[in-house]
Amino acid sequence: MFVTFEGIEGSGKSTAARLLVDYLQERDFDPLLTKEPGGCPLGRTLRHILLDARGQSVSSRAELFLFLADRAQHTAEIIRPALEAGQIVLCDRYADSTLAYQGYGRGLDTEFLRRLNDAATGGLVPDITLFLDVPVPCGLMRAGQRNKEAGTVVSEGRFESESLIFHKRVQEGYHALVKEEPERFAVIDASQPAEDVALQCLSAVEKALRQRGSVL
Amino acid sequence: MFVTFEGIEGSGKSTAARLLVDYLQERDFDPLLTKEPGGCPLGRTLRHILLDARGQSVSSRAELFLFLADRAQHTAEIIRPALEAGQIVLCDRYADSTLAYQGYGRGLDTEFLRRLNDAATGGLVPDITLFLDVPVPCGLMRAGQRNKEAGTVVSEGRFESESLIFHKRVQEGYHALVKEEPERFAVIDASQPAEDVALQCLSAVEKALRQRGSVL
Repeated sequence: MFVTFEGIEGSGKSTAARLLVDYLQERDFDPLLTKEPGGCPLGRTLRHILLDARGQSVSSRAELFLFLADRAQHTAEIIRPALEAGQIVLCDRYADSTLAYQGYGRGLDTEFLRRLNDAATGGLVPDITLFLDVPVPCGLMRAGQRNKEAGTVVSEGRFESESLIFHKRVQEGYHALVKEEPERFAVIDASQPAEDVALQCLSAVEKALRQRGSVL
Repeated sequence: MFVTFEGIEGSGKSTAARLLVDYLQERDFDPLLTKEPGGCPLGRTLRHILLDARGQSVSSRAELFLFLADRAQHTAEIIRPALEAGQIVLCDRYADSTLAYQGYGRGLDTEFLRRLNDAATGGLVPDITLFLDVPVPCGLMRAGQRNKEAGTVVSEGRFESESLIFHKRVQEGYHALVKEEPERFAVIDASQPAEDVALQCLSAVEKALRQRGSVL
């Protein structure tokens, strides 16, 4: 089973994903936690380029292709082999991020982006996507605090320094994606405390596993 | 005027381009010599990933997107501004390389690759493309010697270590591209000595300049 986490910066995806790993391990599952960008060696090099706001100049087109390069390598090298080995793969951001950020956020054509995602992933679609829904100002405030605490660690700086309007477009994009595929998305109220958010995620994954006949 | 150089490894593109710069400068033109991958700061980082055969594992899809990221940034940051400033831009490899290597060489769909090139370049097509035509074994021998002399410098190693059959497919791809757009391509006999190759290039560029009304 392939589970992805989506949402704006500061929506709590990484924390929820880590807690979900614990819950699944307690239940004798063997989850693999990974992320985009940066889930494979090539991707870690690209992550520095993509997320470091102080780095090299990167046009919106170049940015798009770097994310796709990361996704292509990550899917082939990490995600597909883990799924084939029977693991539950939890991925922090995936193809929907491209639609939300480069499509709705930066204004690139979403139909073309879907074709690019297909080319990068060979058509691999998540079984369930947990959309962590949080008011935009809330998420940005959390992300800002996290970066302050993290000091010089490369975070999602390039995107966090974008305007509030940009992040609102991204958030609207996620809502549009949920509307288009309500059966794939589970909307999680991410304004709750981290433990509660992770429990909502667990319950959505349990439901999906039950539908597939795997009892949790 | 936008001039690109294409051809397999060891066809003498870089040498011909450097000599053409000299000839154009002697004639009071102001050429800009650049290349792909690696013609802008982002591209130089990507060039190391793309051409270092000993480097990180890169799938053919990831490779494609890295080349496109380089092209998108290079076109926006270097080529377009130089053309707008009235320079003659000479570029060592460009969009046709993607069609020849990733399309004909690696077997990706060429129509889709054309759309990707369009997206990366915003539709910027060369005024003239100098295709340096050399028998494949000849080119590979030259490329091998060059790498030996260059020692540890990052060359086109990842591609040079591909099979002879791969390079023959690439060469056939170039011939197909020339056939499709005979008015854009000038076929240069690159089995001649370097000076003669550069003179053939000069004469093709002169002809193109005359057709545009710029006297050389």
